[in-house]
Amino acid sequence: MKIILVGASGTMGTHLSKVFEQEYEIVKVGSKSGDILMDITSTESIEQMFKQVGPFDALISTAGPTHVGPWKTLTYQTFRKGVEGKMMGQINLVLIGQHYINPKGSFTLITGALSHDPQLNFANASAANGAVEGFVRAAAIELENGIRINAVSPTVIEDSPQYFPYFPGDIPVTMKQLEYGFRKSVFGANTGQVIKL
Amino acid sequence: MKIILVGASGTMGTHLSKVFEQEYEIVKVGSKSGDILMDITSTESIEQMFKQVGPFDALISTAGPTHVGPWKTLTYQTFRKGVEGKMMGQINLVLIGQHYINPKGSFTLITGALSHDPQLNFANASAANGAVEGFVRAAAIELENGIRINAVSPTVIEDSPQYFPYFPGDIPVTMKQLEYGFRKSVFGANTGQVIKL
Ligand SMILES: NC(=O)c1ccc[n+]([C@@H]2O[C@H](COP(=O)([O-])OP(=O)(O)OC[C@H]3O[C@@H](n4cnc5c(N)ncnc54)[C@H](OP(=O)(O)O)[C@@H]3O)[C@@H](O)[C@H]2O)c1
Ligand SMILES: NC(=O)c1ccc[n+]([C@@H]2O[C@H](COP(=O)([O-])OP(=O)(O)OC[C@H]3O[C@@H](n4cnc5c(N)ncnc54)[C@H](OP(=O)(O)O)[C@@H]3O)[C@@H](O)[C@H]2O)c1
Repeated sequence: MKIILVGASGTMGTHLSKVFEQEYEIVKVGSKSGDILMDITSTESIEQMFKQVGPFDALISTAGPTHVGPWKTLTYQTFRKGVEGKMMGQINLVLIGQHYINPKGSFTLITGALSHDPQLNFANASAANGAVEGFVRAAAIELENGIRINAVSPTVIEDSPQYFPYFPGDIPVTMKQLEYGFRKSVFGANTGQVIKL
Repeated sequence: MKIILVGASGTMGTHLSKVFEQEYEIVKVGSKSGDILMDITSTESIEQMFKQVGPFDALISTAGPTHVGPWKTLTYQTFRKGVEGKMMGQINLVLIGQHYINPKGSFTLITGALSHDPQLNFANASAANGAVEGFVRAAAIELENGIRINAVSPTVIEDSPQYFPYFPGDIPVTMKQLEYGFRKSVFGANTGQVIKL
């Protein structure tokens, strides 16, 4: 089984690649490091990445750049970071990747609790998450050849203590729980689900 | 009370302006007709509209262009219609309009059931709706001076029979119900709500 992991060098990606590469062929992708370099904000770069990888069975994305900061810094300019990054970046992985993925393959995208449970400073991520979740539900009823799609939606995670102060009252999701969320999507049979952790 | 109605010439907007202008000052806005012309996809045009209107008490948006069509016509190019239109168009009405709205004013944006209840042909709207709903929840905890924000989310509406075949099993929302959804947002005290009709 060949799995593309976009965002492999990140906090989530590091854990997921460590555990999944013991069992599967993992193609690590990122903009600065990885087996293949790809900029998620560029459709040409995404297309190029899929051409290089060839047929694959699953794509996991844990790459989702957004603007984080006080509300007054959130303007229509800074808002674009989440639009072109976490939202369109991930949606384009699917719109383009559907032409390269094997039948019965799966896409698993990253969202986060902010879509329904907002926190100060993170409105850009709330919007991007909401978009990706709406897209996942819709794409699930459109994709052919048994191709599935889900989103994994954690609150703040254990290995990101720098974010704890911004998520008061949220019990951090352990890296094991995060991993099992992705396992459920990739190795289960569900589609169109937002897997809340 | 001065209410800006973006999308006043549309199916929803026609009904809302007819009933609300009996009681309130309504500024009708659209890209082709209205008291003021504005293109929701242009931040300059939005800024210009607010300058022209001056201080106001409520903004209602029923303008939300998206790409509607078979999945194979949904590419990263056609997807932009909903991103720049229904999603960023409406979000920019808030990011920019917050600097012009009166204290205790309100923003009411349009989404739709497709964010959580997808239908074939409408994945672009599902994503845009999800983004706007995530944004509404987040903006509600950030906006100052008592400014509120909500979304109205109907399934297919009574005056759009051309869409009925695409929403099997959905009982059309009456124009009265739609109107009351907007009344709840504009004249009630809630914020951060997605008012499902
Ligand atoms: N951390 C949390 O507590 C938490 C909780 C819920 C949701 N989330 C969401 O989960 C996602 C991942 O979080 P994380 O903490 O693992 O992030 P992270 O540590 O910042 O890692 C981000 C990864 O994405 C890649 N990336 C960034 N920009 C890219 C681009 N333009 N093109 C391609 N790859 C790009 C990075 O690789 P390169 O540097 O090589 O580009 C890196 O591998 C984010 O969307 C975040 O909002 C995080
Ligand atoms: N109809 C339904 O059954 C239904 C159900 C649920 C949700 N919705 C959503 O509700 C929204 C409105 O629906 P509707 O049926 O009333 O739409 P509609 O009849 O097509 O009206 C759209 C309105 O938006 C304006 N508009 C379009 N593009 C614009 C732009 N670039 N800049 C500024 N204004 C623009 C139009 O005016 P100009 O032509 O002058 O630009 C018109 O007044 C849509 O987002 C739709 O997805 C509709």
